[in-house]
Order: sequence, then C-alpha cells, then structure tokens
Amino acid sequence: MPSDPAGTPDAPLPPEFGFIRRHFQPLAGEGALGLADDAALVRPPAGRDLVIALDTMVEGVHFLPDDPADTVGRKLLRCNLSDLAAMDATPLGYLLSVSRPPGRDDNWFAGFAAGLHDDQARYGVTLLGGDTTGTAGPLVLSLTILGHVARGRALRRNGARDGDGVWVTGTIGDGALGLRALRGELDDPAGVLAHRYRLPEPRLGLGLGGIASAAMDISDGLVQDLGHLARESGIGARIDASLVPLSQAARQAGAAWLPVCLGGGDDYELLLAVPPSHEAALLRAAAARGVPVTRIGQFEAGTQGVAVHDASGRPLTLDRTGWSHF
Amino acid sequence: MPSDPAGTPDAPLPPEFGFIRRHFQPLAGEGALGLADDAALVRPPAGRDLVIALDTMVEGVHFLPDDPADTVGRKLLRCNLSDLAAMDATPLGYLLSVSRPPGRDDNWFAGFAAGLHDDQARYGVTLLGGDTTGTAGPLVLSLTILGHVARGRALRRNGARDGDGVWVTGTIGDGALGLRALRGELDDPAGVLAHRYRLPEPRLGLGLGGIASAAMDISDGLVQDLGHLARESGIGARIDASLVPLSQAARQAGAAWLPVCLGGGDDYELLLAVPPSHEAALLRAAAARGVPVTRIGQFEAGTQGVAVHDASGRPLTLDRTGWSHF
Repeated sequence: MPSDPAGTPDAPLPPEFGFIRRHFQPLAGEGALGLADDAALVRPPAGRDLVIALDTMVEGVHFLPDDPADTVGRKLLRCNLSDLAAMDATPLGYLLSVSRPPGRDDNWFAGFAAGLHDDQARYGVTLLGGDTTGTAGPLVLSLTILGHVARGRALRRNGARDGDGVWVTGTIGDGALGLRALRGELDDPAGVLAHRYRLPEPRLGLGLGGIASAAMDISDGLVQDLGHLARESGIGARIDASLVPLSQAARQAGAAWLPVCLGGGDDYELLLAVPPSHEAALLRAAAARGVPVTRIGQFEAGTQGVAVHDASGRPLTLDRTGWSHF
Repeated sequence: MPSDPAGTPDAPLPPEFGFIRRHFQPLAGEGALGLADDAALVRPPAGRDLVIALDTMVEGVHFLPDDPADTVGRKLLRCNLSDLAAMDATPLGYLLSVSRPPGRDDNWFAGFAAGLHDDQARYGVTLLGGDTTGTAGPLVLSLTILGHVARGRALRRNGARDGDGVWVTGTIGDGALGLRALRGELDDPAGVLAHRYRLPEPRLGLGLGGIASAAMDISDGLVQDLGHLARESGIGARIDASLVPLSQAARQAGAAWLPVCLGGGDDYELLLAVPPSHEAALLRAAAARGVPVTRIGQFEAGTQGVAVHDASGRPLTLDRTGWSHF
C-alpha cells in the first residue's frame, strides 16, 4: 500500500504544483525541462556571450494594485527585455519568481500568465523555470532574463567619449506622466500616457553594436540615468531640454510637466552615446526598425554631471531628477 | 551650472546606490561589470551547457525573523547551489533580488552580505548582478544561480529505471527537526539540528554524471520528493524507513519524530536513482568527497507512488508527507 498521498495517482499534489501547472507550464519552452527539474538547461549559440539581468517589481511600488494583471506580466518581461536591448543582446528566455499574497486570486494569475504568453510570442522568449512562494506582504515579482550577444561586443555604459552625441529613442516622459494620470493628477483623455506607463516598448534589435559607444535603458529618469552613463564613462554631458522628444500627449499636458518628463522614470527608451561619424549609420539602423531617434546633446570631457539648458542656452534647474526605490 | 544633483560629484546618489555599493559591490566578480551596467556578461566554458535555477526565500516562510543574517544569506545561496548539485553542475555565479521592508536595517544587510562573502569563497562563485527594491511586506530574497555541465550530461529527474536503487546523501530529517527545535518543540542541546536547518550543505562535486540515472535535491521532504522523481520517471518506489540514515541528534530525538524526518523539508541532500551496476562507482565517488551515501530502497516498474515500509516489511503511514508553500 503506498503510504504517500503526494506520490499516489489519486491524491492531490501540493497546491503550488497545480498553480504552476495551470498558469506557467503553458509558458515553458525548450530548456525548461517541463518545469519538472531542479534547474533549466540553456545552450547559448556558439561564439556568443550570455547576457543576464534581473528586475523585481513590487505591488504598490512598481505597479499599481489595480493595473490589469496582463499588463503587469508584460511590463515585468518588457523591463527586463529593455536591459537586454541596452546591451544590444538578443533574448533567449526567462525565469520567474512569484511571491503571492493570500488575497491574490487565481483569476489574477490567469491574466498575468496570458500577458506573458502574448509577449513571449512577440519577443521570441519562453519560460525556463522559477519559483513560487507565499508571502504575507504585497505581491513581489522577480524576473531573470537571459540573452546573448556577439562575443565581446556587448554595449556598456562606460564607453561614451568627448564629442559623442547624446541620443534617445522614442519619446521621453510618457511613462512618468502616465503614472500621474493614473493617480488622477493629470488629464489623459485617450489613455495614451497610462498605456505607455503600463506597457513600455523594449527597443530590441536595433543592431547598435558597431554604432553606439555606450548605451543604457532609461528606467529611473532621463537626467538621472544620463548622469550614471556619464559618470561610468568618466565625463560630463550637456543636453538641450527643448530637443528632448515629447509625444503629442506629453506636449498637450503643458510645459509645467517638463521636469517630470526629464526626471521621471518608466521610459524604457534607450539612451545612447554616438560618435558623429556613426550618426548616419544610427539613423539608417533606426529607420530600418521604424524607431525614432533624436540627438539631444553631447558628452564633454573635462566636465562632470549633467547640465540641462533651454533653447537659448540658459541653465535649467529641475525639481525632480529621478526616482529612488528606498 | 550642472542642474542634476544626481549627476554632480557633490550630491548624494539615490539611497539604493549606497546600499548596493556598501553591501554588494564587494561581492561582485568577473562578468558583473562592477554592477554598473544593465546586465551581466557570462561566457560558459566551451562545450558545456549552462544550468540555471532560481529559489526565493520569504521571511517567516523559509527562514525565521530571528535567524542570524549571515546564515540567511548563506542558506539562500546554498539552496540554489543544491539545485546545481542535483544536476551534476559546477557553479558559475549568481544574481540577487532583495525586496527590503522599512524596518530591516543596514546592519542586518551587512551580516547578510558577510555570509554570502564567506560562502562565495567556499563554493567558488561571485555575484553577477541583481536588483534591490522596497516592499511594505516581509523581506523577500530571490537568487538566480548559474552553473555549467558537460554538454547533454545534466542529471534529470526522469531517468530512474526498474531495479535502480534509491540512494540518499548524508542524513535525512535534521533540517526539519532543526526548525521544530528553533520553535521550541524539541530539545536540541548542542544546537546541531538548528545548525542543519540554517546551513544546509549542498552536495556539489560528486561527479554523478555517469553514475546516477536520475537525481534531485530533497527540499520538500524525502517522501514527497521521491514521489516527484518516481512520477517523472514513470515508475514507483519502495523504501525501508529503517534504512533511512539519521544523525545521532535525530536518533536521540526519538522514534516519534520519524514521520517528520521522512516528511519534513530543508534537507538539501541528494536523492539518487543508481543502477546496481553503478553502485561501486557511486561508493568510490562519495568516499572521494567524504560524503556518506545510503541505499534506502528501490524503484519498481508497474507501480506508482512511494511505498514506505518498516524493517519487517509492514507498510507505514505517514502523518505528514511534505511541505507546500501555499
């Protein structure tokens, strides 16, 4: 007589097994070993370096409790994909950690997994493994992303040189304005800004390897992140606030919101250092992917920090330069 | 005039940067890029598959609020290393996610990082990257471990065959008894059991690749985990409870605690399926590392689940077969 209810065919498995089977087994791909083993197996393509990053999102800190579950899943994946984009890497797959509060029901996770499923197809990744636990606190989601890049060719933050242009992809500030709109501080009649907050667009596949001298993604705010890139490169940067590309929705919000656009987080656009001799190649690469790129300033040796000025060259002082999680 | 306090040399960086610099920068190794970039770079050795796993620990669920901080860090790392050991993989490095409640002070994280530092040297791994966030709930720690294994030679759970012996490393039940001792339910005069609960010993480097036909680490309890391995292999297993190796401390606890030893979690010993023709090789490999191994039963085709019997062959019924996190 088998004495182990967990091991007999008729007895229920522990609840977390059902949870994983229902929501996450359908997301598993090659290398995940059916989510049945202790670890996943990954074989990076020959001659490529493996790129790996991890981003954690906490309910009430990185997403709002009433954000739709599918967009929470997709944002978690996309924020991580954006880290790969910043290094010019190609996505491979991901691992997921879910720490689940008692009040978060199964329907919510069905939506969360559906969002991941849609984005898996969009970005060519599958789930490799992970862990699910309970917590007495808010929902904590952590995702580890794997990608690969041509050996020794990953873009870094420390490569900006004197005279390189400061470039950004897309438009800046929509994510930060979207958060304010969802909090009721700002009109967002078409929901465009809220959509940008909830669903950032990782700028994968631009092929910036031989073009940019440094890159990072803008997650904590343009000015703060540019400060990081400049510091890692050992130089300073000057940007013209009037050149920072704003969406139509951000322009409609009015000039009073400019500090939030320059300082707020959640853009997930790329920030690039590009030497003048590579500008034509950048514009071609961006046009090939349909991604707008804009030159907003330049890196300058012998300076430190980020200087922001207006169209007439007068220095601007910002109220808010970024976002810190503590 | 630079207008970005975050970018100027005199202004403070956001608090999370100081937190990372103080506690985690000293743990960073090659590939971490100084924890300054969006992702880490890893180059697995030629001809090896990459092995990757993730384990999350939540305060109050996987460790006790008053467990020493250094053992929490070491246990987190060791549980993950144990997943590599189960696949016969060699550790490479790890990424760390810390979701920090407001009440958890800097001293605690100094101890946590010191524990990781000690174990990094012991197991030959370094920190590759990660993320730190705040949370309003309990401390949530998630670790992603990377390792490598000979191409196509990773041990899996699904390889057990009829007639293979059921083997375990070390002794079984100390972790589960240690948790009870820390809760005051059990005497533990020398603190041996509590120590085993707080500091499991990952069974790395046994070189089981050509010896075992299946393996996993015992984290949720011997009987439950054996049930998983048997199910993945499409067969059943029988074990003799009287053969399960118990430590002196566990034997002193008395026979009433046997169900906890067989069913409780936190062992992090290896559970192996080994064909009789490989037993001599297993014993040699284990002796070379000074790791005890014990045969406790066998796998049987045509059956399902796990049958536990006593020394005279009578079936045993367990009160508690494992541990589920929900």
